[in-house]
Amino acid sequence: MGNSRRKETATLLVSCPDQQGLVAKIANFIYSNGGNIIHADHHTDSEAGLFLSRIEWQLDGFNLPKHLINDAFGAIALPLKAQWQLHFSENIPRLAIWVSKQDHCLYDLLWRIRAKELKAEVALIISNHPDLAPVAQHFGIEYHHIPITKENKSDQEAKEIAILKKANIDLVILAKYMQVLSPQFIEQIPNIINIHHSFLPAFVGARPYHQAYSRGVKIIGATGHYVTQDLDAGPIIEQDVVRISHRDTVADLIRKGKDLEKIVLSRAVRLHLQQRVLVYGNKTVVFG
Amino acid sequence: MGNSRRKETATLLVSCPDQQGLVAKIANFIYSNGGNIIHADHHTDSEAGLFLSRIEWQLDGFNLPKHLINDAFGAIALPLKAQWQLHFSENIPRLAIWVSKQDHCLYDLLWRIRAKELKAEVALIISNHPDLAPVAQHFGIEYHHIPITKENKSDQEAKEIAILKKANIDLVILAKYMQVLSPQFIEQIPNIINIHHSFLPAFVGARPYHQAYSRGVKIIGATGHYVTQDLDAGPIIEQDVVRISHRDTVADLIRKGKDLEKIVLSRAVRLHLQQRVLVYGNKTVVFG
Amino acid sequence: MGNSRRKETATLLVSCPDQQGLVAKIANFIYSNGGNIIHADHHTDSEAGLFLSRIEWQLDGFNLPKHLINDAFGAIALPLKAQWQLHFSENIPRLAIWVSKQDHCLYDLLWRIRAKELKAEVALIISNHPDLAPVAQHFGIEYHHIPITKENKSDQEAKEIAILKKANIDLVILAKYMQVLSPQFIEQIPNIINIHHSFLPAFVGARPYHQAYSRGVKIIGATGHYVTQDLDAGPIIEQDVVRISHRDTVADLIRKGKDLEKIVLSRAVRLHLQQRVLVYGNKTVVFG
Amino acid sequence: MGNSRRKETATLLVSCPDQQGLVAKIANFIYSNGGNIIHADHHTDSEAGLFLSRIEWQLDGFNLPKHLINDAFGAIALPLKAQWQLHFSENIPRLAIWVSKQDHCLYDLLWRIRAKELKAEVALIISNHPDLAPVAQHFGIEYHHIPITKENKSDQEAKEIAILKKANIDLVILAKYMQVLSPQFIEQIPNIINIHHSFLPAFVGARPYHQAYSRGVKIIGATGHYVTQDLDAGPIIEQDVVRISHRDTVADLIRKGKDLEKIVLSRAVRLHLQQRVLVYGNKTVVFG
Repeated sequence: MGNSRRKETATLLVSCPDQQGLVAKIANFIYSNGGNIIHADHHTDSEAGLFLSRIEWQLDGFNLPKHLINDAFGAIALPLKAQWQLHFSENIPRLAIWVSKQDHCLYDLLWRIRAKELKAEVALIISNHPDLAPVAQHFGIEYHHIPITKENKSDQEAKEIAILKKANIDLVILAKYMQVLSPQFIEQIPNIINIHHSFLPAFVGARPYHQAYSRGVKIIGATGHYVTQDLDAGPIIEQDVVRISHRDTVADLIRKGKDLEKIVLSRAVRLHLQQRVLVYGNKTVVFG
Repeated sequence: MGNSRRKETATLLVSCPDQQGLVAKIANFIYSNGGNIIHADHHTDSEAGLFLSRIEWQLDGFNLPKHLINDAFGAIALPLKAQWQLHFSENIPRLAIWVSKQDHCLYDLLWRIRAKELKAEVALIISNHPDLAPVAQHFGIEYHHIPITKENKSDQEAKEIAILKKANIDLVILAKYMQVLSPQFIEQIPNIINIHHSFLPAFVGARPYHQAYSRGVKIIGATGHYVTQDLDAGPIIEQDVVRISHRDTVADLIRKGKDLEKIVLSRAVRLHLQQRVLVYGNKTVVFG
Repeated sequence: MGNSRRKETATLLVSCPDQQGLVAKIANFIYSNGGNIIHADHHTDSEAGLFLSRIEWQLDGFNLPKHLINDAFGAIALPLKAQWQLHFSENIPRLAIWVSKQDHCLYDLLWRIRAKELKAEVALIISNHPDLAPVAQHFGIEYHHIPITKENKSDQEAKEIAILKKANIDLVILAKYMQVLSPQFIEQIPNIINIHHSFLPAFVGARPYHQAYSRGVKIIGATGHYVTQDLDAGPIIEQDVVRISHRDTVADLIRKGKDLEKIVLSRAVRLHLQQRVLVYGNKTVVFG
Repeated sequence: MGNSRRKETATLLVSCPDQQGLVAKIANFIYSNGGNIIHADHHTDSEAGLFLSRIEWQLDGFNLPKHLINDAFGAIALPLKAQWQLHFSENIPRLAIWVSKQDHCLYDLLWRIRAKELKAEVALIISNHPDLAPVAQHFGIEYHHIPITKENKSDQEAKEIAILKKANIDLVILAKYMQVLSPQFIEQIPNIINIHHSFLPAFVGARPYHQAYSRGVKIIGATGHYVTQDLDAGPIIEQDVVRISHRDTVADLIRKGKDLEKIVLSRAVRLHLQQRVLVYGNKTVVFG
């Protein structure tokens, strides 16, 4: 392991059927090429018979040129029947943020990215409303106002997909978008993170704070998850909660929830951007 | 207000349609009779148009004899259309604890009562299994083994109700009873507190830890609630949560959950025993 | 109690030596003048022999004109040897925010005030550095750059006090000001809230995150408190914590701490602005 | 990695100066001998230039007999200048629990061990008071009443050390022992875990709940740590907190604190027993 986290690194996320020698084989691949591992974490889901691993090493001194690493690792992965993703720390992920009218998550994300808490570039913001254009402008980000109605939904989504592809977007963040994306959209865009304003699976669907108020719960939560075809049922990345009491009105729940939403969404995005999340089935491994 | 919490006190829990002068009328009732208020907390649910209040005062120096207080307050309550409960701190509530095979909540409750953390007397323990009789014996409590089958359920429950009535039980605690009580039972026993091993309303029904594991949540919880005809939907008194990760197996969830169950159940029981819980509709006010 | 929290209200914060009839006397004052109490909470510190109370009522229908309430209550307070503060909800408090170079708390406070989470007006921002002028400008707030050196400190503070008095400031917020105010300044400005980036009283003084890292704690915190002559020892309004691990560097602690600082400071300010905090000795009562 | 956590495993805790190839070398040692890694976690403290690792593998199918593993690994460790500990899951650690008069942590530990939450054997209990002998008896554990006075302290501690050595104790747990051990004792007994009833480093020394009450903090905590010569300053294993308010008396703090103490102490002991804690300097790495 090395002494600086600043130098360029490569990260492998690997999953494969469980078998002997996996840690050794992956570590050897890196060591034999002169790499210096700075993070390695492994998990076995013994029920699923799966080995899941994250390994990060410094490229300084690594013998393989970057463009050959993927194929070289493929030669090791093939006999292991492994799936893997390879990332380089110098590739700054490009984000698109989807918003409606609420600005708290948008401000929060843009502030964190500008403050370099999150290592990413916001390429554009898309909204079905014009309201948040001034926020985009303050942070110098392109803002696309694309109003969605029942009638124009598939056309407008096609337009959005074209914008995303043209801009080489790596990750879409639904920062309180408050709309359901079509199955076609979800199919074409691989990485979408949403913030749901409840402690899923409690209070799926609309108006979760009103539901929580009616039920009289003593704690509310928020959930950061990947978007899948199954509404509110995608793999969960992060959750957090806050205590409430009978004194809290629905408006108080919404206010307290906003703080949760900001923190949970930004943590989920951060974990994704650091390649710390591995999805398998409908669950995630979040490497520490 | 007074300077000692040790002296005998009376507590009123009052709910009535919201109107002017409620705090003054209740406080005057106590002050004009020479009472010294040591706790007073009020809540208005403006949506429901309800005023809810808890007021506790020292009986030392109070001019009304204890047996007349209820009627005297009734004269004030009637024109306010108020419902109320009156409690005296020297009346030690009598508990019946229901268990199955798991002993963690039972040990916890019996320890707290012996340590005087909870001011109550455990009159008896009822179980559908014989397993926990030695725990009862260690703490010197009567243990009734009443096995329940589909066929004998209504007969056995009738027997249980007879035991409860004979023993003047004020509160039944389901300390991981793991069985559903019949509607007839619930109708006849007014105060039943249950610990549900999930963060309700997530994971209602059976095997909530298995459900939580399958869903891949990052936090699990427990819920202390009053039992009503509607399974797992009774008014919630207290909830708490603990963080889990992909490393936790179902067995780990169960282990971590046990600590939650103990703490949440004992807090709910404590709040009830201190007359801090007022149920209205399907919700609770928990006075601080 | 009434049915709307939107109408104008008056709030009394009262502390006096404990004695009988206090709740009744205060409630009667309001009821007899036609007031409708919407919040009342009382606390007795029996060790200190003190009664502390917060009571809020609607002015709609109240018989006393606003300008006479203070004197009218004074007639009741005098024989009780009570101290009290009277506030009207339509008086919007005027704030001055002190910053250095860090912008996270400033953004957070300005966003919350604009979003009406906090009911207050930011009259001006003062800083010993010019860095955050653009943030002030974005939110349309006056920004005073007043550099402080050892040599000019007392002169510059005199200038600041003049600005505060001219602007009729009700509350000064140190939003990561990172400088020590002189005793003379603190003496002249009654309400100053500071955010300390540790779980006080752990890690008083400089660089608390570095201290926390060196000590190897597993949880870090932040503390919102009133500023007194005794550095880092003022009455605590609010605290919160977040879990850390050996993987977290000092930079990670600082990043995680920023989220705490924002939330704890804004909660402390909110509690103060809602007249929910009563200081006595070096402690606070925070009314729920 | 393997499919069962039940089979016998070996665990290595390794620390050494950071250098390339460490993960590969350790993993190869296990793989080349036919071992199946079921947990591996590594950490680099780049400031200290240290690599710290925990690796656990199944012995089923491992080519080296157990009694040769230590020396075989030594041949790898020597050139790496590594320090290491080797544990086998079938070696059940032997505990001695130190108590005074408070029984909550003792009940809690003994219950967890009997319930197999903690994999250990309690060989004996030592106390300076006779009070908890009945608890020991209920769980069938040997109880030594060894009263300590200023005059007899070194003699009695010598007696205690003799008992510990004779009983082959691996770990001493101070379960609210409330006494300071002498430097001589600490020097001779390598593994001692204490529960301190505060959120260290806040409120070191005596009566932390009284200190917390006086300071008016809004959150209290507990700390599980290794005992070192420097009182209350040993390496921290685990901490947790609970929220309090002005309504809580010192007695309430003590009551709420007891729940924390039980949970934090048992978590610290569990982490130690699972060889998840590596001490370096005055800090710990706690492997997930």
